[in-house]
Amino acid sequence: MSILVVGSMAYDTVETPRERRERQLGGAATYFSLAAGPDADVRAVAVVGSDFQPEHLQLLADRGVDLTGVVHADGPSFHWSGRYHDDFIERDTLATELGVFADFQPQIPEAWQTSEYLFLANIHPSLQASVLDAMPSTRLVALDTMNLWIENTRDDLVALLPRIDVLMVNDSEARLLSGERSLAAAAAAIKAMGPSRVVIKKGEHGALLFGRDSVLSVPALILPEVIDPTGAGDSFAGGFMASLAAAGASRDSDDAPFREAMIHGTVVASFVPEAFNVESLLARDGASTGARRAELSAMMIP
Amino acid sequence: MSILVVGSMAYDTVETPRERRERQLGGAATYFSLAAGPDADVRAVAVVGSDFQPEHLQLLADRGVDLTGVVHADGPSFHWSGRYHDDFIERDTLATELGVFADFQPQIPEAWQTSEYLFLANIHPSLQASVLDAMPSTRLVALDTMNLWIENTRDDLVALLPRIDVLMVNDSEARLLSGERSLAAAAAAIKAMGPSRVVIKKGEHGALLFGRDSVLSVPALILPEVIDPTGAGDSFAGGFMASLAAAGASRDSDDAPFREAMIHGTVVASFVPEAFNVESLLARDGASTGARRAELSAMMIP
Repeated sequence: MSILVVGSMAYDTVETPRERRERQLGGAATYFSLAAGPDADVRAVAVVGSDFQPEHLQLLADRGVDLTGVVHADGPSFHWSGRYHDDFIERDTLATELGVFADFQPQIPEAWQTSEYLFLANIHPSLQASVLDAMPSTRLVALDTMNLWIENTRDDLVALLPRIDVLMVNDSEARLLSGERSLAAAAAAIKAMGPSRVVIKKGEHGALLFGRDSVLSVPALILPEVIDPTGAGDSFAGGFMASLAAAGASRDSDDAPFREAMIHGTVVASFVPEAFNVESLLARDGASTGARRAELSAMMIP
Repeated sequence: MSILVVGSMAYDTVETPRERRERQLGGAATYFSLAAGPDADVRAVAVVGSDFQPEHLQLLADRGVDLTGVVHADGPSFHWSGRYHDDFIERDTLATELGVFADFQPQIPEAWQTSEYLFLANIHPSLQASVLDAMPSTRLVALDTMNLWIENTRDDLVALLPRIDVLMVNDSEARLLSGERSLAAAAAAIKAMGPSRVVIKKGEHGALLFGRDSVLSVPALILPEVIDPTGAGDSFAGGFMASLAAAGASRDSDDAPFREAMIHGTVVASFVPEAFNVESLLARDGASTGARRAELSAMMIP
């Protein structure tokens, strides 16, 4: 079964407390695809500019990602620039140059419209809606969003929520969307707006699944050192969706495969902050994934 | 087996975003004792002023806490005043009036010097050292401290660390003490300074045990509403020590009873923020504790 992802492919300029890296490979669809790629049949819908390097697309193709849905447009690729605070939790966006992304109108190739799983990465809710319109027969849809859309295009976003199955946000976005301070109350309010499950990402504090009948808290792996956490959230989503697809889960499944998907997403995302950019994600293999999964289980089991 | 706790008994004036409460029963030894009391033989060493209300001591006695070590001094009781931020995570101390606590010199009754378990709540490290001097034959010693002592009496504190078994601090204190940003590195550095185990409390994000051979992450229970988190950390410590005492654990035990103690501490502490002051802690019974423990297990088991 296939996972279709719609989102950005971009270049990121990242400043950490120790180092600055210019124009690294980035974007939500990129990290998602590289995280899900080895374990699932991933189809990417995105737009890249004339400056996008062929070797970067090749990295994705080598990971088994189908790039038929990536449009090549004239102009610069989306470029994001940000600076992490000392704690690596907060970061300031220094620049967002949309480039060819400004006119992105996702087109879903006809053969892909029956993809079973759909991940709508963080883009304008009206574009997310257009993708949903083109894909009426999914088994499961998950959606990411951000404070920008919650604040500026709230009605569009709220109109989408009854059409999706899993909302994936961070804790401050959950609070902003729901108006509730307590995460329990926030998740309940969001579920009342549509999705039957809510995943709340908390960075180094792990992630919470508010499932249909259960709650699961998964800690983040304890890393000796954080180098660059950019893309960890999208990689979590990639691992999460790949696990659901491997289990053949659907929106009607009970919470069990979603709990398992939380674990796999956490394991996959844990590789990202260990190195700049996609390096450690690319180095991930079955052995390192299994070892880290055992480490996570040992941290969780009372 | 007995647990001896040395720490403050006090009055707290607490401002939350919604309400202000004047001169509530407070203090680390108070919360610790009420949390451990129902399940363990607790002995409290503290000082109270002439304004300390007999019914507050009666509350502790009713919970089975032995108050032989509580000295009554002339003058006002320790009074702390603080204001919580909207997020209930950060708080500002508005006033610290030491009163009779300024001259506190803990005296351990002779019959209590062989108590098996010792909890040194957050007081000046030199006072903590004097208690250790009086109690050479414990099975296990745990110690809490705070940024004030880490910054101002660092040498005294560091000299204590080889003499204790479990250091219990919050995440910012662990970073301050170790100079390490990563909690894994911080815990390793602290263990190198003496204690074989480190507990790092993270408030609503739960707590981490860095044991001798293992790491455990315990999430906080998801509470529908937070009213007043004052005392949750000391109540965690009370539950933690009561569980170790019930298991007969010692510093030479393997990590298993410490992992179990993390769970029980988390369960007991979870009652505190649900109401002002000690109300919900007092209402805790076997049935409510068991129900909450089941809820926590369901949140943790993949």
